[in-house]
Amino acid sequence: VRTDISTGDIARLVVEDRLWHRLSRLAEFGATADGGVNRQALSAEEIAARRQLVAWGTAIGLQPHTDRVANLFLTYRGRDADLSPVLIGSHIDSQPTGGKFDGAYGVLAALESVEAMIAGGHKPRRSITVVAWMNEEGSRFAPGMMGSAVYTGARARADILDICDHAGRSVREELDTVLRADADVPVVEKRQRPAAYLELHIEQGPILELESKVIGAVTGIQGKRTYRVHVTGEENHAGTSPRSVRRDALVAAIDIVKALQNALWDRDDITRFTVGQFTVTPNAPSVVPAKVVFSIDLRHPDADQLRPLGDAVPEICANAAGRCAVAVTQVLYDPPLEFPPAIRQKIGRTADRLDIPWMNIPSGAGHDARHLHRICPTGMIFIPCKDGISHNEAESILRSHATAGASVLAEVAFELANAV
Amino acid sequence: VRTDISTGDIARLVVEDRLWHRLSRLAEFGATADGGVNRQALSAEEIAARRQLVAWGTAIGLQPHTDRVANLFLTYRGRDADLSPVLIGSHIDSQPTGGKFDGAYGVLAALESVEAMIAGGHKPRRSITVVAWMNEEGSRFAPGMMGSAVYTGARARADILDICDHAGRSVREELDTVLRADADVPVVEKRQRPAAYLELHIEQGPILELESKVIGAVTGIQGKRTYRVHVTGEENHAGTSPRSVRRDALVAAIDIVKALQNALWDRDDITRFTVGQFTVTPNAPSVVPAKVVFSIDLRHPDADQLRPLGDAVPEICANAAGRCAVAVTQVLYDPPLEFPPAIRQKIGRTADRLDIPWMNIPSGAGHDARHLHRICPTGMIFIPCKDGISHNEAESILRSHATAGASVLAEVAFELANAV
Repeated sequence: VRTDISTGDIARLVVEDRLWHRLSRLAEFGATADGGVNRQALSAEEIAARRQLVAWGTAIGLQPHTDRVANLFLTYRGRDADLSPVLIGSHIDSQPTGGKFDGAYGVLAALESVEAMIAGGHKPRRSITVVAWMNEEGSRFAPGMMGSAVYTGARARADILDICDHAGRSVREELDTVLRADADVPVVEKRQRPAAYLELHIEQGPILELESKVIGAVTGIQGKRTYRVHVTGEENHAGTSPRSVRRDALVAAIDIVKALQNALWDRDDITRFTVGQFTVTPNAPSVVPAKVVFSIDLRHPDADQLRPLGDAVPEICANAAGRCAVAVTQVLYDPPLEFPPAIRQKIGRTADRLDIPWMNIPSGAGHDARHLHRICPTGMIFIPCKDGISHNEAESILRSHATAGASVLAEVAFELANAV
Repeated sequence: VRTDISTGDIARLVVEDRLWHRLSRLAEFGATADGGVNRQALSAEEIAARRQLVAWGTAIGLQPHTDRVANLFLTYRGRDADLSPVLIGSHIDSQPTGGKFDGAYGVLAALESVEAMIAGGHKPRRSITVVAWMNEEGSRFAPGMMGSAVYTGARARADILDICDHAGRSVREELDTVLRADADVPVVEKRQRPAAYLELHIEQGPILELESKVIGAVTGIQGKRTYRVHVTGEENHAGTSPRSVRRDALVAAIDIVKALQNALWDRDDITRFTVGQFTVTPNAPSVVPAKVVFSIDLRHPDADQLRPLGDAVPEICANAAGRCAVAVTQVLYDPPLEFPPAIRQKIGRTADRLDIPWMNIPSGAGHDARHLHRICPTGMIFIPCKDGISHNEAESILRSHATAGASVLAEVAFELANAV
């Protein structure tokens, strides 16, 4: 029984075919005609996928349990089962037109990691628990990261129960259905904070691919500030009103977006600035627009950069509004989050030892790791996805990258589970 | 009995209080809580307003008739009733949140004109027929100018009968209802082209007011070219995709609109360029837009200017689209129309004789006069509307302007009805 830090013994026991087979098999639950997956949170498709996951786990001796918000756990018992466990995993719910790998890869690679340890007889000091968090995507029941939010205490269970999907089904009803389908899986409420949490995920962006790296040691999750901008002009007749008297809300909104683009432009292409929603009233071809409401999504990994960039938004909008009125409301301010350097270093050192090209990378998207970070040492590992495409049926990864990610995860998880 | 050109005898018999009273009275049919009018084509409100109009006309000896598309005519018989008549009027249907004056003013000022002639014993050679065209607005049954289109042969009656409103009621059914309600009004299909058509209307723009003029001798109706532009980029994650890899359809669409603004800018502020409709897909705050569809409404009174401006649109769009694809479709091309100088000159000379400040002005909006222009000498007279606001419950005019417009209309109509 090995208990010291890894020298690649476990990584060598990661079986690419087994991992890839399970990825393909899980993708059959909710498979779409276009090669993607529609397996939304708490759906019949997800229930079937959970059954498969429990079957795979118990077949190799893992102990399944769930909790009252249907987070699913499969535990590989450590030598000292009284110690708090190391959690590794992600989620198996998907977007309605999602891909095969977002979430599912992190869970199945975690299962593969544990199976590699078992195959080599490597028993860690602490237990290692594979986890699939409930409703990360939030596409059926908004907002997402629901299971990890309740697990970490960021949100009360009572607050999510009455959230309904478009068909009017509530989280409460669907949780009942899921837990009834899992009647052989004990419901256990956790008593301990985990010793650590590791999440392996596809990058959902193009950087690793562009940089020809296979592993990203995620430095943190970038900060995000979002705004809603209301631009108010005056409705007028497109044929009769001269430019000089118009108060065209679309013209003003466009000038505002251009001014924001210029002000937020950075040579290094780190700042993320997106106007994703832009709604015009009355939106008729022959009427000068009276109103535009648009969204601003502004992200940056550095808190000291995000703050002033965001603080400048209202003034930039006001200065560019011309004859129109403008009102700017901040909707959300999530400061950047930085994962502990100790875990990031372990990821980098492990990749080095396994001769896998790696880099530090911030996460542009949010993940369950955001919540876990609040209660335990947390880290994330990225692998590339083709063309950076995600939340899309065309989502694709390489088999060799999948194996590399699972290998690093297995080594780092084992190391963390042996740490004091 | 006077038969020569006017010296203001009729204008002096226009009674401001009577005209204003009728405007207020007609505005009660479909009156809205906010001071406007909802009296859409072929509605119960319009039927009631027609009854009132027929009552006013027959009370002063006019002969009512209608036709199979419910255009309403009230004839003041001339000395030679076999000659083709002069038509004067507009429409009494409104937008759903319309004002009291758009259309209604032209019809009631026409009635007042004829009443002034009758009061002075001025009998013209040709008959003068007050007309209210069916469905000018097109807000309930699209497109508008329906009654005048059928009257002039621009459109076949059979082509409009199956057009339905949002509630599924057809023009056919509603025409039946209107004509049944007007059972005492004979249905007569016209046999002659009119000798001339005059339409008095509020400007629906700010120019007369800005120039401190009370009468506009309308030079013509400006030309109009409209386009639909499809900009196609690629959906992406707002948090993960760097600017350098994005194909953001909103960013491209904004650059296109700015390029069009610059290319279509004219010092004299004659060109009308409007992007009234602008629709983003998927229109979600955290998703880089994959698609924008927007409209272009481009108008100019000069055919030789409108043609090249419009012809340049597709290339301007293509050049500004950056990494996105763009497709431009022309939806409509109505060349400018110029009213006969002889009629415009009569309007100007009459205003001069009556000491009313006037100017030549193009019509930015379309009117039933567009169709009448195809079959007979046609002219239009504008009066100012407050702040240029129209198609709006706040639409407002001055009493003195209403009187001035009716005075000019009465004099010019009488002159035309006496011409050979």
